[in-house]
Amino acid sequence: MSDAIPRRGLMLVLSSPSGAGKTSISRALLDQDDNLAMSVSVTTRPKRPGEVAGRDYHFIDGESFGLMINRGELLEHAKVFGNYYGTPRAPVEDSLRSGRDVLFDIDWQGTQQIREAARADLVAVFILPPSTRELEKRLKSRAQDSARVVAERMAKAADEMSHWPEYDYVVVNRDLETSVAQVRSILAAERLRRDRQIGLGEFVKALREGQ
Amino acid sequence: MSDAIPRRGLMLVLSSPSGAGKTSISRALLDQDDNLAMSVSVTTRPKRPGEVAGRDYHFIDGESFGLMINRGELLEHAKVFGNYYGTPRAPVEDSLRSGRDVLFDIDWQGTQQIREAARADLVAVFILPPSTRELEKRLKSRAQDSARVVAERMAKAADEMSHWPEYDYVVVNRDLETSVAQVRSILAAERLRRDRQIGLGEFVKALREGQ
Repeated sequence: MSDAIPRRGLMLVLSSPSGAGKTSISRALLDQDDNLAMSVSVTTRPKRPGEVAGRDYHFIDGESFGLMINRGELLEHAKVFGNYYGTPRAPVEDSLRSGRDVLFDIDWQGTQQIREAARADLVAVFILPPSTRELEKRLKSRAQDSARVVAERMAKAADEMSHWPEYDYVVVNRDLETSVAQVRSILAAERLRRDRQIGLGEFVKALREGQ
Repeated sequence: MSDAIPRRGLMLVLSSPSGAGKTSISRALLDQDDNLAMSVSVTTRPKRPGEVAGRDYHFIDGESFGLMINRGELLEHAKVFGNYYGTPRAPVEDSLRSGRDVLFDIDWQGTQQIREAARADLVAVFILPPSTRELEKRLKSRAQDSARVVAERMAKAADEMSHWPEYDYVVVNRDLETSVAQVRSILAAERLRRDRQIGLGEFVKALREGQ
């Protein structure tokens, strides 16, 4: 009897308003977990200095993007500031089939699309800031953001936060370490869900037959 | 804004065949977690030496037990070797309302009854032994069990194990420490479920209004 029970991977979605700490939580998760990988999006926007094609994004042209939509090859897609962004379906499905988990850093609109495409595989976590004051502080501490940008982001955050009821779990990010531990618990628990452990039927059959 | 978001408690059910390690896991959970308490059953069987009324069981007579059934005061009940056992509803509901979690060490029949009575509050975990050989070893190591009793328990275990598909989570108990950590993750995750954090609506409202 083999030690590990074959398992179907899951799609872990983290959403939050900008400044709630989602990016730090994602990085810590990816660092600590070999069975979790970030989904790499396709985009029509130009590559920025420092970005690596295939790691940060797959950079494609508008025609290719349109074709991917038409062929149903994207799990979700959105237009932001005139550029298109999308999540290719095939690599995600490959991961899930081989028992690897995929992390998504997407907003509520992307989450809604993924929920429609793949409800059973989705684990959706919403990250909240501990207070408005703290959110504002975090947005202000980003040196490049002007007062106007901060105000705009606060308004956008209020809008984003209205979608918390569409998520399975909610984590209030009071400190990074606790929040990372909480999302890790969610990941650990969801991996133990009966319906993801696709090898259980065979395992219990062997147990019951005394092997 | 208060630090902790008001939460509804949950009912954590652990079921397993005898010998799979459920009792050790339960004890470790209760030792490590101040917000988790064991449900105390009522029973019509006589108190045994060493047992404490109100801690191990509430000892009541058959007439009282019948009245509790008729009044719908039991979440589940069963007859075992001529004695009745049941879970009183009121203390569990008090705990859930005040955000405390309740642990149940019950079999698949009790779990089915609780699922009918309180689906949304139930988190059902099935514990499996790593192998038939290990299960037999554990049952044999209990000095008081004769060969016939071990054989009977192995048959009963096979029967009990057939009910794993009725549970939310399945943990294969290869070593106690890992299994305890896994059930603790399940508990931690389930506490973060959006629909148990009943104070979230108010919390997000305050966040969005900039308080």
